[in-house]
Amino acid sequence: MVENKKTKKKKKMAIAVMSGDLDKLFGAFIIATSAAASNMDVTMFFTFWGLRAIKKDKRTGKSFMGKMMGFLESGGIDKASPSKYSMGGLGRWMFKRMMKAKKVASLPELRQMALDLGVKFYGCQMSMDVMEIPRESLMDETHECVGGGFFVEKALEADVQFFI
Amino acid sequence: MVENKKTKKKKKMAIAVMSGDLDKLFGAFIIATSAAASNMDVTMFFTFWGLRAIKKDKRTGKSFMGKMMGFLESGGIDKASPSKYSMGGLGRWMFKRMMKAKKVASLPELRQMALDLGVKFYGCQMSMDVMEIPRESLMDETHECVGGGFFVEKALEADVQFFI
Amino acid sequence: MVENKKTKKKKKMAIAVMSGDLDKLFGAFIIATSAAASNMDVTMFFTFWGLRAIKKDKRTGKSFMGKMMGFLESGGIDKASPSKYSMGGLGRWMFKRMMKAKKVASLPELRQMALDLGVKFYGCQMSMDVMEIPRESLMDETHECVGGGFFVEKALEADVQFFI
Repeated sequence: MVENKKTKKKKKMAIAVMSGDLDKLFGAFIIATSAAASNMDVTMFFTFWGLRAIKKDKRTGKSFMGKMMGFLESGGIDKASPSKYSMGGLGRWMFKRMMKAKKVASLPELRQMALDLGVKFYGCQMSMDVMEIPRESLMDETHECVGGGFFVEKALEADVQFFI
Repeated sequence: MVENKKTKKKKKMAIAVMSGDLDKLFGAFIIATSAAASNMDVTMFFTFWGLRAIKKDKRTGKSFMGKMMGFLESGGIDKASPSKYSMGGLGRWMFKRMMKAKKVASLPELRQMALDLGVKFYGCQMSMDVMEIPRESLMDETHECVGGGFFVEKALEADVQFFI
Repeated sequence: MVENKKTKKKKKMAIAVMSGDLDKLFGAFIIATSAAASNMDVTMFFTFWGLRAIKKDKRTGKSFMGKMMGFLESGGIDKASPSKYSMGGLGRWMFKRMMKAKKVASLPELRQMALDLGVKFYGCQMSMDVMEIPRESLMDETHECVGGGFFVEKALEADVQFFI
């Protein structure tokens, strides 16, 4: 096992979340909460479609294309569709029901758990600019909006990194 | 290079496989077998669509929706479709032919090679529950069915981690 | 932070790029250039659809299926479509316009920046064989065409690894 020089230092994890799919977000938050629960420092960097995970349910966009993007990507984490069998929303409904039947935590619950455990959420400023998603449309709990360089720095400091 | 304290200790790799696509599985098994062949300890954690890679060709599901999922995701690793140009099975057929023409190992062959080299396969218990995939429908060689926390632990111990 | 034994040694990053999607490639090159700009040694290993990123705009394929694949995957990095809302090229056009409006670097510009910063590009020989993409159809700047084992070696040496 890779050991830190100062053994008392907390282990760190850095996750870049580019996907906004229900299953991928599920994986990301399960990994993040598991790591935080075992006392790791966890950084989540949300970019492109992944921004859905920390967005309020609020329409975004200023320009014509920004509004179109805001329409296509409308809704918050609750509107994430699975990467397969999206089927116009049917897949989402089905997955949610199956998860509920097995008493698995929902995405909003997992996200809250992550926050409660001290996981830090960062928004990717560049994709926010491109997709015309203003800071106010992200959850108030979002720690900061930063550039890709910030994530690379966190990734380099981390003991474990993922791109999801 | 990151060096272990005890230099005789084997290097470790942990891979989370969430995708069930032919190309992604191909990448995962090529990486896993290459690593195992160079004497690394390799853990593969199969979750969601990735479970296809270690499933027997057996129909699963109990509830109506579980059966529907079992129907949609029927078949084992041999039925994996490429992430692009799936075209109702045509893409799979085409890729398999092109791989065979170049004498590239098939997915079932790569998987067997992984097992022979000591790669350990784990099923994600939570996604098995949600998708109603019982333990018996996974390959007998599956080492254990575990939670996300188990994978995080393995990832932390590992020198290299991937999310595929 | 994981520290190298010889502290003067450059930190290393290894990225496997299997996706050929505009957004994923964007993420890959942003990470790569950020890392290279902070003086890291960066290796990018392009495989399957990711080969588009280092391909010349030249038709490939010898056999019937190879030609079909060459037709489906025709064009270079400029023809990458977003992973969502591809909409027959409309999504690509829209994304490019939105990026330009925000003065974000284009993919060809980011790729050139990566080269200028010393990022090393490798092609996956096996997927080149399968998809019938000859060495000549890759950018001259491509460092070498190698097997999966080479990437695993680079990943093991690296401080940070990603699979995109």
